[in-house]
Amino acid sequence: MGLFSKDIETMDDLFVHMLRDIYYAEKKIVKSLPDMIEEANEPQLKQAFQSHLEETENHVARIEEVFRMHGVDAKAIDCPAIDGIIEEAEGVTGEVEDKKVLDAALIAAAQAVEHYEITRYGTLIAWAKQLGRNDCASILERTLKEEKAADAKLNALAESFVNRRAA
Amino acid sequence: MGLFSKDIETMDDLFVHMLRDIYYAEKKIVKSLPDMIEEANEPQLKQAFQSHLEETENHVARIEEVFRMHGVDAKAIDCPAIDGIIEEAEGVTGEVEDKKVLDAALIAAAQAVEHYEITRYGTLIAWAKQLGRNDCASILERTLKEEKAADAKLNALAESFVNRRAA
Repeated sequence: MGLFSKDIETMDDLFVHMLRDIYYAEKKIVKSLPDMIEEANEPQLKQAFQSHLEETENHVARIEEVFRMHGVDAKAIDCPAIDGIIEEAEGVTGEVEDKKVLDAALIAAAQAVEHYEITRYGTLIAWAKQLGRNDCASILERTLKEEKAADAKLNALAESFVNRRAA
Repeated sequence: MGLFSKDIETMDDLFVHMLRDIYYAEKKIVKSLPDMIEEANEPQLKQAFQSHLEETENHVARIEEVFRMHGVDAKAIDCPAIDGIIEEAEGVTGEVEDKKVLDAALIAAAQAVEHYEITRYGTLIAWAKQLGRNDCASILERTLKEEKAADAKLNALAESFVNRRAA
């Protein structure tokens, strides 16, 4: 930010700012998922995190594609929101010993990450369309669809673990 | 956390931990909304934030009710996730001068908050049911419904502002 000026002047600036924010977030998630895969107990949960790691690497590449299409540098800016969400996840899971409780905590943490991404991609898609960039919107929509599917899969896994214990 | 022990041993501990986390988050949102009401330009957006402030005060009271029903102290614990989401919101809106761009940034920020709450209440409701606390779940479900409605209202507002500009 300049000393006397504000950096975000137009909707285009705001779109690029948010794109750089989610770029940072996706790259941070790529770094965090291996620990979650390691910590998960149920093989299905490990597998879900593993698949999502591969998807997330694609999401990073898609954002880079959107940067290129929009003619701006692929630059990440700090995203205190994802830092906070991941800090909290690590804080909670670090307090849990029992494997089943840990799986429940990991699922909740991953869903908080998914929801952050769902809201950001939803916003980015709306802004891209508003800016006449339907081409960018359609790339971002593919990612949004995968984030929603990942969240639904985590819901289903949580439920199946509970039912198995109750059976 | 104790020096040699981990504090969250059971699903009940995890539920109470998450309840204390969202209690902190809701109280922080009550403190943040007045600034957002002040900053919003469109009267409908100001009004939406104002109604949501009143709802959020009820959400705090409902969490206190759940604490009472579950027989634990109504205690908040630091929630780095909501701190990060709000820090990021303030960082972005502080960079925006134009009133219409600021409204768009405020809507996106509020939706990030809503999505954090949606995921947390979803998790809390599932855990409450798992613990046989359908009574707690049904109180939390009333809040979840309002958070989802607030998010949908913000979507509709964002769209109506864009259409008005295009007309």
